[in-house]
Amino acid sequence: MTFSQAVTPAADEAKFQKYEPLIEKYNQDKWAQIERFDPHFYKLCLSKLPKECELDSEPINATQFVTEKEYGLLSNLEYKIVNAYTMSELLAKQRSGELSAETIAKSYIKSAIIAQFTTNAAMQFLIPQALEKAKRLDGHLKRTGELIGPMHGIPISLKEHMNYEGQITTASYVSLIDNVVKESAVTTQIFDKLGAVFHVRTSQPQCIMHLDTWNNISGRTRNPLSTRLSPGGSSGGESAMVGMHGSVIGVGSDIGGSIRCPSAFANLFGLCPTTKRLSSMHCVSGGRGQESIPSTEGPLARSIEELEYFMDSYINHGKPWEYDPTNVPIPWKPASLPADRKIRIGVLSTDNLVTPYPAVTRGINETVAALLESAKFEFVDLTPHWFTETEMEEIYNCNLKLYTVDGNQQQLELVEPSGEPVLPLTKHFLEFGGGNELSVYENKKLNIKRDSVRLAVFEKFFSRKPGSLNVDFILSPTYVGPSEIPGQSLYWGYTSFWNLTDYPNVVFPTGHTHDKAIDTFEAPDKLRGNKYEKMVWLNDDAKTLKYDPEHYVGGPVALQLTGRRFHDEDVVAAVKLISDTLKLSRR
Amino acid sequence: MTFSQAVTPAADEAKFQKYEPLIEKYNQDKWAQIERFDPHFYKLCLSKLPKECELDSEPINATQFVTEKEYGLLSNLEYKIVNAYTMSELLAKQRSGELSAETIAKSYIKSAIIAQFTTNAAMQFLIPQALEKAKRLDGHLKRTGELIGPMHGIPISLKEHMNYEGQITTASYVSLIDNVVKESAVTTQIFDKLGAVFHVRTSQPQCIMHLDTWNNISGRTRNPLSTRLSPGGSSGGESAMVGMHGSVIGVGSDIGGSIRCPSAFANLFGLCPTTKRLSSMHCVSGGRGQESIPSTEGPLARSIEELEYFMDSYINHGKPWEYDPTNVPIPWKPASLPADRKIRIGVLSTDNLVTPYPAVTRGINETVAALLESAKFEFVDLTPHWFTETEMEEIYNCNLKLYTVDGNQQQLELVEPSGEPVLPLTKHFLEFGGGNELSVYENKKLNIKRDSVRLAVFEKFFSRKPGSLNVDFILSPTYVGPSEIPGQSLYWGYTSFWNLTDYPNVVFPTGHTHDKAIDTFEAPDKLRGNKYEKMVWLNDDAKTLKYDPEHYVGGPVALQLTGRRFHDEDVVAAVKLISDTLKLSRR
Repeated sequence: MTFSQAVTPAADEAKFQKYEPLIEKYNQDKWAQIERFDPHFYKLCLSKLPKECELDSEPINATQFVTEKEYGLLSNLEYKIVNAYTMSELLAKQRSGELSAETIAKSYIKSAIIAQFTTNAAMQFLIPQALEKAKRLDGHLKRTGELIGPMHGIPISLKEHMNYEGQITTASYVSLIDNVVKESAVTTQIFDKLGAVFHVRTSQPQCIMHLDTWNNISGRTRNPLSTRLSPGGSSGGESAMVGMHGSVIGVGSDIGGSIRCPSAFANLFGLCPTTKRLSSMHCVSGGRGQESIPSTEGPLARSIEELEYFMDSYINHGKPWEYDPTNVPIPWKPASLPADRKIRIGVLSTDNLVTPYPAVTRGINETVAALLESAKFEFVDLTPHWFTETEMEEIYNCNLKLYTVDGNQQQLELVEPSGEPVLPLTKHFLEFGGGNELSVYENKKLNIKRDSVRLAVFEKFFSRKPGSLNVDFILSPTYVGPSEIPGQSLYWGYTSFWNLTDYPNVVFPTGHTHDKAIDTFEAPDKLRGNKYEKMVWLNDDAKTLKYDPEHYVGGPVALQLTGRRFHDEDVVAAVKLISDTLKLSRR
Repeated sequence: MTFSQAVTPAADEAKFQKYEPLIEKYNQDKWAQIERFDPHFYKLCLSKLPKECELDSEPINATQFVTEKEYGLLSNLEYKIVNAYTMSELLAKQRSGELSAETIAKSYIKSAIIAQFTTNAAMQFLIPQALEKAKRLDGHLKRTGELIGPMHGIPISLKEHMNYEGQITTASYVSLIDNVVKESAVTTQIFDKLGAVFHVRTSQPQCIMHLDTWNNISGRTRNPLSTRLSPGGSSGGESAMVGMHGSVIGVGSDIGGSIRCPSAFANLFGLCPTTKRLSSMHCVSGGRGQESIPSTEGPLARSIEELEYFMDSYINHGKPWEYDPTNVPIPWKPASLPADRKIRIGVLSTDNLVTPYPAVTRGINETVAALLESAKFEFVDLTPHWFTETEMEEIYNCNLKLYTVDGNQQQLELVEPSGEPVLPLTKHFLEFGGGNELSVYENKKLNIKRDSVRLAVFEKFFSRKPGSLNVDFILSPTYVGPSEIPGQSLYWGYTSFWNLTDYPNVVFPTGHTHDKAIDTFEAPDKLRGNKYEKMVWLNDDAKTLKYDPEHYVGGPVALQLTGRRFHDEDVVAAVKLISDTLKLSRR
């Protein structure tokens, strides 16, 4: 049990120096692929796109370099492909012969390169493989007249921790910088069979356990909407890539908010499904064998329709349970929203533990107000019925302890061999449980606590039994802030609560954005007394305000809708209705 | 961590003495209910049925007292109700007015009383409640012309560890002898709504962790087919009760063989479903919060049709996920057996770790031979493709350690307060992991090992991918012996392997019974060298044979069919086909 003595190991520079050339080689390959793909385009990007120091210091909206024609980085056709055509249009245009998979791949590779220049979203490019696959698909279509599957020629980005056959898979651990794996993740294998094209593997933070994306191999990833902001994490490479239109859709994973937080930060749609519906097999993680809070894969997308199509294709055509015996064989079913009454949504504008920042509170209020104008929804304020501050603090403590229940041994076995520096948010995570290994007995008690919370949520809110508030869905913030400044995503509670209890959620944009003029806060004395509220709102002195509206310029407000376990289809359908009602256009 | 020092606590006589009056009162209530129900019948039983000492020493087939008219314990109608009428006939005859729920309840209460006199299967009777419910059901039918649900008036026995509203629930822990609970188990609630009548709660062993049934409250339960034998465990009260026709069907639970082993020992059908299909909520156990090997509830029945009806009613009408958020909302589907080819069954006549006793080996060979005569099945010998002896020993060690992963702390918290003596098979269980508490880190490693075994079973045998033996089902022994003598059920591997890997199985009778003349074994030098083989076959000297054919007189051979995860319906359908092919009549 010696590991757990040192919660945060010191960097070992001597060891790390040996890895530095490998890291350099790894990153050089990425840029070499980019240059080789189209030397002219590479130079164009170099000349047209802002430099790193500017991106890091200014709230630059990087999506403009893809979405606005005048930068001249993309041809008219490429522009249409990555911006205008939805996934179903891309499929239809391939079927009709108007577009080839190769053309689509090349266009998306270009926007992925722009994403890389601006947001540093990639760990690894797979350009030759993508082009080869695209040509193969075009050949198949020509030969047979049929698309190979429901994802024929659709460029999908993959969170790098998913194994990719024949390629290095690091999961951002420096110690794995030469870890060439033999077999792709089951999810990747499935999308490969369905016809998807993989051109880029995206970044995740050290230990895959920040709500931010920063690691010692690829560095920091930026928020596409405001480059000095965080893209969220741990699937922040995905949110940056999808947000930059560098892929049609992305595959992330979530154990505490890792799909939903980046989706919210980049103003995307993201689904954290009920666990065991998608396969997490053959992914690298420091949490293998931990099952108190299971993780799940899931999609990040620019529209709810594409997200739905992803799930339908994956589950109904991919049948993950035929590869991964831990998966539950439930088809992606038609949704069953109430037809004869309003959809009843419980609103949890605060979790009673940490007050959201003003833009988020404003966003949730304005969204509810806008939806109320439609006859489709009714709302009930859940806050007075929710767990109290004291209960929530206990629940969150339980939640955090379960993330580090083995005293970080498995994580440190992956971190320590390279001597890589432990980043601040890694330190924050490693200390979640105080750094101590729990006994199995203590772990069991926490599991029992978790089960009681899951049951209470069910019986108090979702159950049809008397005494339940009988809501269809729960609407809540995704995160305390309208995205976050790098290194400051400290409070996981708005998302991790739902991992602890394993209810599915969809994150969706609201159309609202932080406004530094109105989203101000001047009353620190009105804050709650608990330590998490202080950690989020106050400086280390626990008195003066840390919150600064200036920080969040360009930050979007995206909310989280939660449904009953295994009712993922209904959550998606409800968000589709919300999205239609709010007239949210495709990102 | 002081608990884990003493693997097996010594009995504390002073403490225990304080509980003895409570135990006496608890048991007296049982006999008082029996006498009060029908004083004449009570005396008849006393006079006609063998005494305890005879039951314990002779291989008496106790079912004769129910199934053979000449004993005169049951009227002609009662005889028909408990022996001849299937569950669907009981429903039909109530619908037509030929039988009332009350008549059915009274008949089954009588055979449950005979079961109690001979096998000591009950912890607690619920006779007044059952009669009251039956009358209520009769009233409902009269009033509405409709059965209240698919289990209208069907007497079901319940393993006692399932909470029962307003009643003491002990789970056989003496310390819980005054534990009156407020809420029934979800499964009980469901069957209550479906119309079932609960008249008896059945025994389980100390800690609910023997493949035998013996505890310090109700004592030892006997095997109905041969009373000096064990009824199996931990749902041995259920196998004795259902085997004695004391209920139409019983609800047991299984974490290492606890439904299947008793089903086999009493020559019944038993289903251990994929976990999370049935609810285990509101049951007392010493394993709460342990999730490396989850337990599941499941039925024991006299015919495969009734078992299927139980599952269909429970899942499709009961919808457990509307009460228990840990349940998976998968309906009980129509089975999908191959229509255009033979059913392909892998035969595992030995698990390569412990050789079954001769009757079991003979039973599996003769069953395969009989099934081969039909054109419906093909068989492939899995033994050469199975895990090796060394691999199996590792797997079984992992399996055992996971049962005691917290160093038995939770169990001892329930055992120690009463000072009750620790029974030999409890000691055997408490020492599974050597009595040590594992670290969470070690627990995780064992989970990873477990996952690799689950995957290997899938990829080597069940998967449709190249390289797989591509079987539909696996046929194997349920237990090493044709039931077991009390206190000697030491090896769990034939059942616990499937809990470790979480594949569903159905146990079914084969029609074969131990024959002391032919099921002999004289070659201890041909046994394997591993410690589990020796534990099962040899005396403590590790040389001389412990196996004695004389012990197993009256012991049946029932086999276990295993299918893919969540394909419970197919396993049941396959056993139905097997049962039809072997012309197995209802027990």
